[in-house]
Amino acid sequence: MDLMEFLKGLTQKNEKKIVLVVVDGLGGIPGPEGTELELAHTPNLDQVAKEGACGLMDPVFPGITPGSGPGHFALFGYDPVKYQVGRGVLSALGIDFPLKPGDVAARVNFATVNEKGVVIDRRAGRIPTELNRELCEELEKKIDIPGIEVFIRTEREHRACLVLRGEELRSEVSDTDPQKEGFPPLEPKPLVPEAERTVSILKEFLKQARDILSSKKPANMLLLRGFSSLPKMPSFGEVYKLTPACIAVYPMYKGLARLVGMEILKTGETIEDEINTLKENYGNFDFFFLHYKATDSAGEDGNSEKKIKAIETLDKNLPPILALEPDVLCITADHSTPTQLKAHSWHPVPVVIRAKTCFRDNVQRFSEWDCLHGILGKFPALYLMPLLLAHALKLKKFGA
Amino acid sequence: MDLMEFLKGLTQKNEKKIVLVVVDGLGGIPGPEGTELELAHTPNLDQVAKEGACGLMDPVFPGITPGSGPGHFALFGYDPVKYQVGRGVLSALGIDFPLKPGDVAARVNFATVNEKGVVIDRRAGRIPTELNRELCEELEKKIDIPGIEVFIRTEREHRACLVLRGEELRSEVSDTDPQKEGFPPLEPKPLVPEAERTVSILKEFLKQARDILSSKKPANMLLLRGFSSLPKMPSFGEVYKLTPACIAVYPMYKGLARLVGMEILKTGETIEDEINTLKENYGNFDFFFLHYKATDSAGEDGNSEKKIKAIETLDKNLPPILALEPDVLCITADHSTPTQLKAHSWHPVPVVIRAKTCFRDNVQRFSEWDCLHGILGKFPALYLMPLLLAHALKLKKFGA
Repeated sequence: MDLMEFLKGLTQKNEKKIVLVVVDGLGGIPGPEGTELELAHTPNLDQVAKEGACGLMDPVFPGITPGSGPGHFALFGYDPVKYQVGRGVLSALGIDFPLKPGDVAARVNFATVNEKGVVIDRRAGRIPTELNRELCEELEKKIDIPGIEVFIRTEREHRACLVLRGEELRSEVSDTDPQKEGFPPLEPKPLVPEAERTVSILKEFLKQARDILSSKKPANMLLLRGFSSLPKMPSFGEVYKLTPACIAVYPMYKGLARLVGMEILKTGETIEDEINTLKENYGNFDFFFLHYKATDSAGEDGNSEKKIKAIETLDKNLPPILALEPDVLCITADHSTPTQLKAHSWHPVPVVIRAKTCFRDNVQRFSEWDCLHGILGKFPALYLMPLLLAHALKLKKFGA
Repeated sequence: MDLMEFLKGLTQKNEKKIVLVVVDGLGGIPGPEGTELELAHTPNLDQVAKEGACGLMDPVFPGITPGSGPGHFALFGYDPVKYQVGRGVLSALGIDFPLKPGDVAARVNFATVNEKGVVIDRRAGRIPTELNRELCEELEKKIDIPGIEVFIRTEREHRACLVLRGEELRSEVSDTDPQKEGFPPLEPKPLVPEAERTVSILKEFLKQARDILSSKKPANMLLLRGFSSLPKMPSFGEVYKLTPACIAVYPMYKGLARLVGMEILKTGETIEDEINTLKENYGNFDFFFLHYKATDSAGEDGNSEKKIKAIETLDKNLPPILALEPDVLCITADHSTPTQLKAHSWHPVPVVIRAKTCFRDNVQRFSEWDCLHGILGKFPALYLMPLLLAHALKLKKFGA
């Protein structure tokens, strides 16, 4: 069964508003004194937990550690195993590149090759972002392939993003990045016969790029990986009969929201900015995805104190959201980022849904352990959207 | 989605070791004073529960009572509904017969027929195993079918196993066992057109067998059921990038492990022998499946006291396993065998995963009820392998 297809037949428009706050990487695992969420002082989160229905979600399924793409797709109700987005597309989203259907995108590394053409540094000594920008501009200006538009755009340091635009391009092409030093770059290969023309174009692109970069050591080569195109995804607004808006600081999350058809609201750099954006636009949409990044960054840094502070900062900023009295308020995460692992993890994430229609349970504290014992129990994140729609009375009865 | 296909793209080799202890039939249902697991004195199991993450698993899905095959396949990450193994193959595995791809195996009953050919005892009065052995030897020696190798091997009492080996044999053949006394044996029938030749061969086999057995009353007939061939199963080692070993006393479990490609280690008859085998081979593998049978046998006997002792014997023997400090230690069961039912059951089984990377929860006691309240919650056994791999950091992030 396709969940979205099923839900589409049950959704109904009404005036109720849903606010989904995604606290990136919120979940953790206990240190000697508990998880960061347990250690943080969070009177507002706890109040929401007291008034709401709590649970614990597996982002994908037990054991699977999601990247940002799968983590958010699941929260948005898109089966992350079915809707997979390639590295190249994510790179393009991450720099806010206006990707079009049919474009082929790839993640680019500037790299160093020796006189024999062997890769001796896959990251070209992590060249400064400014040099990366100069090289990208020169490449984009000089490279000339008839019938093809070539975009090559800086991410940062040695990383960039390549986008090819033209007729009948295909993304089923193998990586040129050998993934290890001591080997020459790989030839791109078609993974389906229809990709042969794209491969010829890529070979021409690589030839010209190599010539242009030959004097630019250490950044004298490009390595390409994760060729991909925009996936066909059902429209969030159409399936759920919602008018959705995204409030996020980082391009990646705006890009993911744009992929499913949310409107991206302009905002500033801080959580205060994001909440102001929410307040200013509150009358114009009935679904808000508000993304908070600081918890994940602290988790990736392995900095427990910073993660606690990031949680407390979020907590302090909740009152203006609560004051809007959204019909359904949900606070959760796209995945855990335990400071002990300094990385995303598979551990389930806490979730609270506060609504007049919720089964208010006995959970007194918003934490992983407390939420496990909430009325929502443990469930796959893919079921979050049906739950939010249900609590907003936006899902009709199934069957007579 | 095929789970193994999906996982195969995420698995990565590292040096970490996983030990999976399967306590056969461990789960129970409470008597007046609790379940056997609650009544047993289990300081070591409880210590592992305190240090680990606990949960409760449905072997297949709620309500389904698995045989040994499905129970173990689920633990190994093979969807037991997709990978079904026929009775004949299980019989062959159970006597350690070296089955080859293409062989057709069937479960055999020695039976008694009267002068009209009607089955009057489906079990031939449970003839002694020794007589069974003599008859099998005689049948195997005398039966002659050109181009076909015939193996007929003793299990015990009236039970044996038939294996046909030859070109283009098919297992889609109906049983000859009428399942009730008072009826003649059924004719084998092809269930697909391609099985017609196999059916002719079987008819010839049955004719010769009947002639040989005609004077051997009560064992004067063979009943055949569960025709089956080795299923095509992905290799455990390849999918998970593990070097797996099986330590089990009973042939059935070795057979199941061999089916998925584990190496079968020679061991003795007791749990002490098994643990010595684990210690001796600990350096050579990174995944160990250690099977403990006594709990299931006691459950099948309906002997609560014996089951409690079996659990306590396991508990006493845990320290040498704990001393190996496996990176991931998991203790669980393939199914419940409540003494009240004297049989396998559908009741969920307790599971604990101890690892540095686990969410150490507040569970203090390894029991069904305590484990229900652990951080892993209740989940299908099919997700155990992804969880074990995740805790050993052997699963890459899914998506960027």
